[in-house]
Amino acid sequence: MASALRVGVAGLGTVGASVLRIIGERRDALSAASGRPIQVTAVCARDRTKDRGIDLSNIRWHDSPADLAADGNVDLVVELIGGADGKARETVEAALKAGKPVVTANKALLAAHGLALAALAEEKNVALAFEAAVAGGIPIIKTLREALPGSRLDRVSGILNGTCNYILTQMEEEGLPFAAALSEAQRLGYAEADPTFDIGGFDAAHKLAILTSLAFGVQIDADAIYIEGIESISPLDLAIAEELGYRIKLLGVATRTEQGVEQRVHLAMVPKSAPLAQVMGVTNAVTISGSASEITLVGPGAGGDATASAVIADIVDVARGASRAPFGVPVSRLEKMKRAPIQTHEGGYYIRLDVVDEPGTAASIATRMAEQQISLDSILQRKPRDKKSIEAVDPEHKTVPLVLITHATTEAAVRKALDAVLADRHIDGTPQVIRIEKDQ
Amino acid sequence: MASALRVGVAGLGTVGASVLRIIGERRDALSAASGRPIQVTAVCARDRTKDRGIDLSNIRWHDSPADLAADGNVDLVVELIGGADGKARETVEAALKAGKPVVTANKALLAAHGLALAALAEEKNVALAFEAAVAGGIPIIKTLREALPGSRLDRVSGILNGTCNYILTQMEEEGLPFAAALSEAQRLGYAEADPTFDIGGFDAAHKLAILTSLAFGVQIDADAIYIEGIESISPLDLAIAEELGYRIKLLGVATRTEQGVEQRVHLAMVPKSAPLAQVMGVTNAVTISGSASEITLVGPGAGGDATASAVIADIVDVARGASRAPFGVPVSRLEKMKRAPIQTHEGGYYIRLDVVDEPGTAASIATRMAEQQISLDSILQRKPRDKKSIEAVDPEHKTVPLVLITHATTEAAVRKALDAVLADRHIDGTPQVIRIEKDQ
Repeated sequence: MASALRVGVAGLGTVGASVLRIIGERRDALSAASGRPIQVTAVCARDRTKDRGIDLSNIRWHDSPADLAADGNVDLVVELIGGADGKARETVEAALKAGKPVVTANKALLAAHGLALAALAEEKNVALAFEAAVAGGIPIIKTLREALPGSRLDRVSGILNGTCNYILTQMEEEGLPFAAALSEAQRLGYAEADPTFDIGGFDAAHKLAILTSLAFGVQIDADAIYIEGIESISPLDLAIAEELGYRIKLLGVATRTEQGVEQRVHLAMVPKSAPLAQVMGVTNAVTISGSASEITLVGPGAGGDATASAVIADIVDVARGASRAPFGVPVSRLEKMKRAPIQTHEGGYYIRLDVVDEPGTAASIATRMAEQQISLDSILQRKPRDKKSIEAVDPEHKTVPLVLITHATTEAAVRKALDAVLADRHIDGTPQVIRIEKDQ
Repeated sequence: MASALRVGVAGLGTVGASVLRIIGERRDALSAASGRPIQVTAVCARDRTKDRGIDLSNIRWHDSPADLAADGNVDLVVELIGGADGKARETVEAALKAGKPVVTANKALLAAHGLALAALAEEKNVALAFEAAVAGGIPIIKTLREALPGSRLDRVSGILNGTCNYILTQMEEEGLPFAAALSEAQRLGYAEADPTFDIGGFDAAHKLAILTSLAFGVQIDADAIYIEGIESISPLDLAIAEELGYRIKLLGVATRTEQGVEQRVHLAMVPKSAPLAQVMGVTNAVTISGSASEITLVGPGAGGDATASAVIADIVDVARGASRAPFGVPVSRLEKMKRAPIQTHEGGYYIRLDVVDEPGTAASIATRMAEQQISLDSILQRKPRDKKSIEAVDPEHKTVPLVLITHATTEAAVRKALDAVLADRHIDGTPQVIRIEKDQ
């Protein structure tokens, strides 16, 4: 059997500790899969005294990740520090420059610097692997990079943030308002004390940027992503969606359109029968649509062991001498993405307006839609069956909810029409606009 | 760029024609993914005159697959002939013996001779790849072989036959009896004129045998699989399942138990909320459960382009020099499977009996269950809401359906209890027994 692959792990949080534990527990299986032993020889973390429930004897402790990357007894560096810059980036760059393959779970780093790092890895002819960076336990990176070369991919969409999906599930199943569902998620450890990164859609956007590049063979362009968070969602929207046969999910969606590549993260109405609509709680899922097939992968988006399992799959690939370019094709072959702005997005829309209850209001709003050539599938003026959910939005009943479901139209038309409606002063508060995704 | 990988395709049915077309259409993309051009240089099929909608000029035609395997201008052989023996087996063996990698979609061949062929491939140090053999467009082989080395897998279960799932979906959604749903499937080309191989569960069993080996690192043992088909299903069972919160699916299930590896293909009651319960029509799906995570993959189980896409993914892997053993670890490391017989299966059961409507019958049947220590979760004597479905089973209403839902028990206990019930002559016809799978 070939010599051992000696692994250095930078960052010993939940995932790092799981990586060490699993490599110990599955020594024989990993050796059989790799054709050589896998051995952790060095680690690096902030706090040396913390009890992580793993045996660190016989493993060299480095105080700085740069030292770990330079350690002559380390063949491969696992970066689990996190963050787009700082020590994480230094560690990865140092390892690649030293000609050492890198396995990372760091989506922020890849979204910001993925291309430069991939180019460096290719120059040094070593691997840069990041299965754990997107949707933890789901092998979505391997699938996009290796499993679908026979299919021209047109669309990748997914539930990429477990925190948001948990909150939406709780709101739907327990009838909770947003703030209460968020608190519950925080209490259970599914949401951070400052939840902005998750509920604002930014975490999902980092992941989407990586998936878009892999799916379409284009350069990562995280800045091009249109992002909305989930803070605006109300139980009323969920109740109406239920009546209409939809579920509301925070989706990341990348599609090829005539205008270019459209990348967006926002709440979406998904038909209940669609695979993504079935995904509840902290689970993640990704649907990939192409010329040859449409497949959906469902699984845990986070969690120590699930994410560690993705890290270990990458380590075994490296141990076997896997030779894929980080983004499937060489960085030089990745096309520059032509951005399709959100204004050119085409699709159906759910628009909920809190309308002042006066004669002629609905007619006036319908006219504003018609002026923008927006064709309406339905107008719901009746109150939804669940009265409690209305009271949560509008306890004094000054207004009534008016819901418009449009046929396919453009974002630009919807925005113009709503500007006109707002100028007419028929509505109270901000319109709730949720895009309808039929192609899930 | 490296020299072209020259591919010979044996078998030009729907999948073979798709392989040739896609390799032509995606020349640049495949070259970028492979690091070298992919080129079909030779083909072999029965009928040279048939119009397959593809350009075969500049491609050498062989009348025998053995000649194709021996062709000096062929580096890799794609076997799409089908069948466990005969020409398919000869072709694969000839290619491997000549030191040429093989890509095949042939599940019957692998279920019967997979180990011997894998050993031959390993001896010659060439690839034997078979992504297309199980669940066509779903990358389940790559996932099991490469994506989950960090997880000890305990269970793999799936909807592995699109024909059966289509028939069950039609019965459920349209209220059709089995024979009518089968005819519809045949009319649409989803079922063969002789449908035995699909509806008898044999096709699913071949696929399960391959998945079991990959998931658990054991030798293929297709003969160990307990197989039931779907012919016994009635609309009444589907109606009762609906009431109880289940869907009925033909599943292939492999689990590790204390007795060994349990492999079975049969109808199962799956909770509606489970990912596999959502899978309708000809779609396939597989759930993999392990120590680190549970993931589900959903996608097309058949179809020319979807299956061809799997073949092409394997070709690209070979072109890149991928070096995995066919079953993830060397054949010599695959353990001999300890068979857990179906009699030791533990789980809940749905038992529908057509009971002669006399006082004391239910009590007598319940007693027979108690004698085998079978604890009942519920007994349904009321007629289901859908009266039509009863009439289909029992137009004269001589008997009434009695449904027992058991708590976890063993197959052996259920069989003994039913033998006693049959001996009591309280029931008409054969008991309908459907295992309940909670862990989907």
